[in-house]
Amino acid sequence: MLKSYLLSPGPTPVPERVLLAMAQPIIHHRTPQFSAVFADTAERLKKVFNTKQDVLILSSSGTGAMEASVTNSFSVGEKVLVVNGGKFGERWGKIAEAYGLKVEWMNVEWGNAVDPAAIKAALDKDSAIKGVLMQATESSTTVKYPIKEIAQITKNSDVLLVVDGITGVGVFDIPMDEWGIDILISGSQKAFMLPPGLAFIALSEKAWKKVDGAKNNKFYFDLKKERKNLADKTTAYTPAVSLINGLREVLNMLDEIGLDNWYKRTALLAKAAQAGTAALGLKMVTDSPSEAMTGVFLPEGVDGNKLVKVLRDKVGITFAGGQDQWKGKIIRIAQLGYIGEFDIVIALSSIEMALARFGAKVEMGSGVAAVQEVLMNSFEV
Amino acid sequence: MLKSYLLSPGPTPVPERVLLAMAQPIIHHRTPQFSAVFADTAERLKKVFNTKQDVLILSSSGTGAMEASVTNSFSVGEKVLVVNGGKFGERWGKIAEAYGLKVEWMNVEWGNAVDPAAIKAALDKDSAIKGVLMQATESSTTVKYPIKEIAQITKNSDVLLVVDGITGVGVFDIPMDEWGIDILISGSQKAFMLPPGLAFIALSEKAWKKVDGAKNNKFYFDLKKERKNLADKTTAYTPAVSLINGLREVLNMLDEIGLDNWYKRTALLAKAAQAGTAALGLKMVTDSPSEAMTGVFLPEGVDGNKLVKVLRDKVGITFAGGQDQWKGKIIRIAQLGYIGEFDIVIALSSIEMALARFGAKVEMGSGVAAVQEVLMNSFEV
Repeated sequence: MLKSYLLSPGPTPVPERVLLAMAQPIIHHRTPQFSAVFADTAERLKKVFNTKQDVLILSSSGTGAMEASVTNSFSVGEKVLVVNGGKFGERWGKIAEAYGLKVEWMNVEWGNAVDPAAIKAALDKDSAIKGVLMQATESSTTVKYPIKEIAQITKNSDVLLVVDGITGVGVFDIPMDEWGIDILISGSQKAFMLPPGLAFIALSEKAWKKVDGAKNNKFYFDLKKERKNLADKTTAYTPAVSLINGLREVLNMLDEIGLDNWYKRTALLAKAAQAGTAALGLKMVTDSPSEAMTGVFLPEGVDGNKLVKVLRDKVGITFAGGQDQWKGKIIRIAQLGYIGEFDIVIALSSIEMALARFGAKVEMGSGVAAVQEVLMNSFEV
Repeated sequence: MLKSYLLSPGPTPVPERVLLAMAQPIIHHRTPQFSAVFADTAERLKKVFNTKQDVLILSSSGTGAMEASVTNSFSVGEKVLVVNGGKFGERWGKIAEAYGLKVEWMNVEWGNAVDPAAIKAALDKDSAIKGVLMQATESSTTVKYPIKEIAQITKNSDVLLVVDGITGVGVFDIPMDEWGIDILISGSQKAFMLPPGLAFIALSEKAWKKVDGAKNNKFYFDLKKERKNLADKTTAYTPAVSLINGLREVLNMLDEIGLDNWYKRTALLAKAAQAGTAALGLKMVTDSPSEAMTGVFLPEGVDGNKLVKVLRDKVGITFAGGQDQWKGKIIRIAQLGYIGEFDIVIALSSIEMALARFGAKVEMGSGVAAVQEVLMNSFEV
């Protein structure tokens, strides 16, 4: 009977009305009835991607859309620059290598954002580089990368800027067309507050032109085929019908709140979580935090793996801990998707109690109070 | 307020208790809580696949598992024999070609089963062929292929028998290990009575050995990586959590009914649908029908596209019509998955009424009566 709370930066909690939308009876995917739902959903996704381009819906995890970006846009032997400042940046490079691309690694220290000047220097130095592969938010380090500034560099060149916005689209505004991003992808289980199983991808005109000439292996993730099918209001292969029903309900919710308010809400929760953890004396893992989540180092001597485990199994709160080099050392509090104000209260409250039980020095309630200070002025009286 | 019935051979109706299982709150996928669900589900899938081998769960449509079979088991330049007797056989060949394999096409007339002797002759003639790619049921033609007999031919050779059992596993028994099938795949939206979005794949020892030496491009669909992760009770990439919750509930249902009874039930419905359509004088499209569905030619002069459309939009019954060369000419009644006895009554009843309205000669109630004759002896009194 432990009442459970999912406060991890993906998957995120699914709103009750979305769960119910997904529990509707299945309709056949090759019917005008489903086509109407599908076309409407894909059309409305454009608003969240802030683009006039088609947003394609794939039945896969976000990694599938990462693979699609690589195999549809780059030929075997082409060179790409991969921003590697965490686990997901590293994944870009592994995918590129798996499909025969040459990878120029731009290694960034965990917790740091990539410097646009370094990107510019790398591109100036080597004109063979035809793509920059990076994240909007590197989830493993909670860092937000300066996409807008980097797009300024690639915009008027033959280099494609490919952005994994799995933790980004729907978290903060990423005006793809205005900034000049060439490929932007996302997934269902983050700000889109759905279960995992759908990936989204949009390409600029420049990217679509490159797709025409790209020679690489692909079949299931064939973007030209999907674009042609989308024009016919369908998909190349059987789509994940129930998740798409859920997605439509999510888009209804985002219409109701308004995207600007949605982004403000996430940013407010970020501010609250940052204030709460600061009040506890916990050091943030980065100076460039994403609004998606707050990552902080745990006090010396506290076993982070054990703390996250106890919070989950004994207290009912699921946070994300650290990955790879930060395993056991950090805790990450989610702010994206269907996380509300009092989830941040719960987050800080549970962390305070756990830290105290793990022998750290904590003034009980101080983190919660700091959260309250931020939140109390967020509503009209 | 049209009360709707989904009688297509995929997607199939999802039982209410499965819809509710999928509407459970999402839990994080990197937790012992989800690992327990995942490992239990994967373990119990073995029973349905009738194998001792691991059954891997992929987040994709069935086509993703077809691609995985090709890219994990065959090297660029290797030759495979593709049984092409319909739309899905053709897909095998397209995938193989997309990944640089040489395809030897064995074209089979639509509506016919492939002759095992022809497979044997093709393999004897060309020792360069290292795989036979085929379906258990070719859904586009409703034909059941003689997998057991073909496995006898490949079993003690270096040729892999790769079977798309998307419409097969869970429809009838396919004892993978006993027969000597090397790769068997399936998908969630057929006999597994789930929404689309999951694919399943199992490999024989012989196939796993070949995987070790196969050189081809892959990343998202990397079976060795997934097998390693399954041993750790997890997946390489974020799994479709809600669909896996649903799958576990499906496996509960199959445990309750028992697989033998489940197959008998599907076969009984097939017999009923065959009797009903025969009573209406509708000719079956094949002499080798799968238990999954019954396909019949519509009377001359009846526009099948329009008939299927009217049944769906005005009567509420969704059947599958014909594809490609059979478009507008046939209708397919589903018997697999969560289809019950009275769905077959509804099927024949609605087809009778539609045929009469389309000007065909029909004795109203005669098809239904034939269905009843079959069904009435299926229960104890």
